[in-house]
Amino acid sequence: MRAAVYHGREDVRIEDVAEPSPGPGQVKLRVGSNGICGTDLHEFYNGPMFIGSDTPHPLTGRTLPQIIGHEFAGTVVELGEGVSDLTVGDLVTVEPIEWCGVCPQCLSGSYNLCPVLAFHGVQRDGGGLSEFTVVNRRMAHRVPDGVSAELAALCEPMCVAFHGVLRSGLQPGQTGVVYGAGPIGIGAFLGLRAEGVTDLIVVEPSAVRRAAVERLGAPIVLDPTVDDVAAAILSHTKGRGADGSIDCAGAIGSFQAAVASTGVHGRIVTVAVFAEPVPFSPNDILFRETEITASMCYCNDYPKVLAHMANGAYPLDGWVQHIALDDLVEHGIKVLRDQRAMKILVDVNP
Amino acid sequence: MRAAVYHGREDVRIEDVAEPSPGPGQVKLRVGSNGICGTDLHEFYNGPMFIGSDTPHPLTGRTLPQIIGHEFAGTVVELGEGVSDLTVGDLVTVEPIEWCGVCPQCLSGSYNLCPVLAFHGVQRDGGGLSEFTVVNRRMAHRVPDGVSAELAALCEPMCVAFHGVLRSGLQPGQTGVVYGAGPIGIGAFLGLRAEGVTDLIVVEPSAVRRAAVERLGAPIVLDPTVDDVAAAILSHTKGRGADGSIDCAGAIGSFQAAVASTGVHGRIVTVAVFAEPVPFSPNDILFRETEITASMCYCNDYPKVLAHMANGAYPLDGWVQHIALDDLVEHGIKVLRDQRAMKILVDVNP
Repeated sequence: MRAAVYHGREDVRIEDVAEPSPGPGQVKLRVGSNGICGTDLHEFYNGPMFIGSDTPHPLTGRTLPQIIGHEFAGTVVELGEGVSDLTVGDLVTVEPIEWCGVCPQCLSGSYNLCPVLAFHGVQRDGGGLSEFTVVNRRMAHRVPDGVSAELAALCEPMCVAFHGVLRSGLQPGQTGVVYGAGPIGIGAFLGLRAEGVTDLIVVEPSAVRRAAVERLGAPIVLDPTVDDVAAAILSHTKGRGADGSIDCAGAIGSFQAAVASTGVHGRIVTVAVFAEPVPFSPNDILFRETEITASMCYCNDYPKVLAHMANGAYPLDGWVQHIALDDLVEHGIKVLRDQRAMKILVDVNP
Repeated sequence: MRAAVYHGREDVRIEDVAEPSPGPGQVKLRVGSNGICGTDLHEFYNGPMFIGSDTPHPLTGRTLPQIIGHEFAGTVVELGEGVSDLTVGDLVTVEPIEWCGVCPQCLSGSYNLCPVLAFHGVQRDGGGLSEFTVVNRRMAHRVPDGVSAELAALCEPMCVAFHGVLRSGLQPGQTGVVYGAGPIGIGAFLGLRAEGVTDLIVVEPSAVRRAAVERLGAPIVLDPTVDDVAAAILSHTKGRGADGSIDCAGAIGSFQAAVASTGVHGRIVTVAVFAEPVPFSPNDILFRETEITASMCYCNDYPKVLAHMANGAYPLDGWVQHIALDDLVEHGIKVLRDQRAMKILVDVNP
């Protein structure tokens, strides 16, 4: 079968590899589409970082080379021994993480914070940029009626954003701010709206992305290269400040605007990976007792996002495009690096 | 009567001023002792900052000169009209803040975050460094049996620390870290222990302060000039990290050690005012989804701290000394500036 294999920095090859077979408790999938993620770009241009290297991964033992791709959905084609609650032909989306199950984090339900977390397509035997792949049963979530294969392939990044939505604590009737309108920022905006938080402000410097999130219905969209973001948020909230802010931009400016404009006991949730440290004074959160925290992956978020998807909460108009597997590097990774697209799905089995 | 009056930077005079009378809903107190606070030092050497200036305070209209002192207890000597639930002779400790009562913060119960908060001894008509002073009835908390007048005078800083204790969310059975063993750090340590959190680590560079908190029973005391604080905390918790950290030091080193050593979903609470911004990367809290927040003054904390005081949770051995009002600057403010004492109570009516 054909698969995208990472051999090292700027070295991803579309190769013929052996087709995998499901072991006990596993399922074999025929992959539909697989999204390209910011992490994939980081690994391509700056890696290997999270992706396996010469040192075996502590949970999976994985080393390079590695089949990549961790945002995907597919159709069940074969069930491993003991799997009886899925049927061949089912459309499933994959929660691409495996955890140890015995550390304090796993035992307390926060499996996303397991110290030996392993991602399919990064540190496991296989990935989504492959005609077929085998995952553990509990990684596969059956997709409800009314959710397309295309949308199901986007469940992973939408869950990354949704975990930040829930960690923000924002409730209907409150005012939320989303920094960044890339795929994760769009996911945060759509996730908040799906949860009933409708008084939303999105902050994004790119005109293309502002237009995209406006088309999706964002009521207020600010341009931080022109607008005084903190002043606009304080004005909109009559001086109160936002009830919660989700930083999907990961820039000094977004973080500082969130600190300056989030109100009493409001939460600032960073979903982004930051390229550099931010100057921060705890004095700036003293008089409002603001809270700052981070959001890591997802944890029990797939069923909620799939339910919202089935209710039509995740329109795809204007921010998703498709390429073929052979075009992964030239028309996928490089196009995203140059910000000539927002989200690219690779159709692995066209 | 005699009072300490702030006229401007490095200009505090012990003067004869008019004795106040209680209006309706107020009580007149004969002050016992009044503690000198770090804020008093800031105002003396760098002010006026929070203390009234030429601009009238928005809530109280107060300008300079200002009778100072906001950490005090006293005996009721006269009741204003309508006050029937106190008796002349009662020992009361003062929660020295007045708030507007109509802003969203006040209406939601967070009166400590009222934007026009006014402190007695900073922005109100009178202060504790005065033979007599008049406060609103609700500012006076009756002191339970078994709590000395000396201890009652320390209720304010102990409540500052206790608000941080409650905001940390630390529970019995968990591991807490307190940065700094000045009066607020000691208050955080004693408050946590009173709440049943006994697995505690205190971090303090001063040998005198380390010895003081050790005498009070701190089980583990680290010296950040010698010890690798984060490594010691991670080792003590078998790699898990602290469940909560209270930063009463306000230094770059304390904040960074807390970020490096606070565990999954643990809270870092800054109680201190920071002298400079700290370098901070949200990436450092990503894999543990740590929470950072601040603690501002106190809010409904006085009754709890007074109950703990009545139970003997606040020993004063080795960290409190007394001076007379006339010695305020020479033997009080200057001694604290030079760190030749930990906590100084001014006996206003010896």
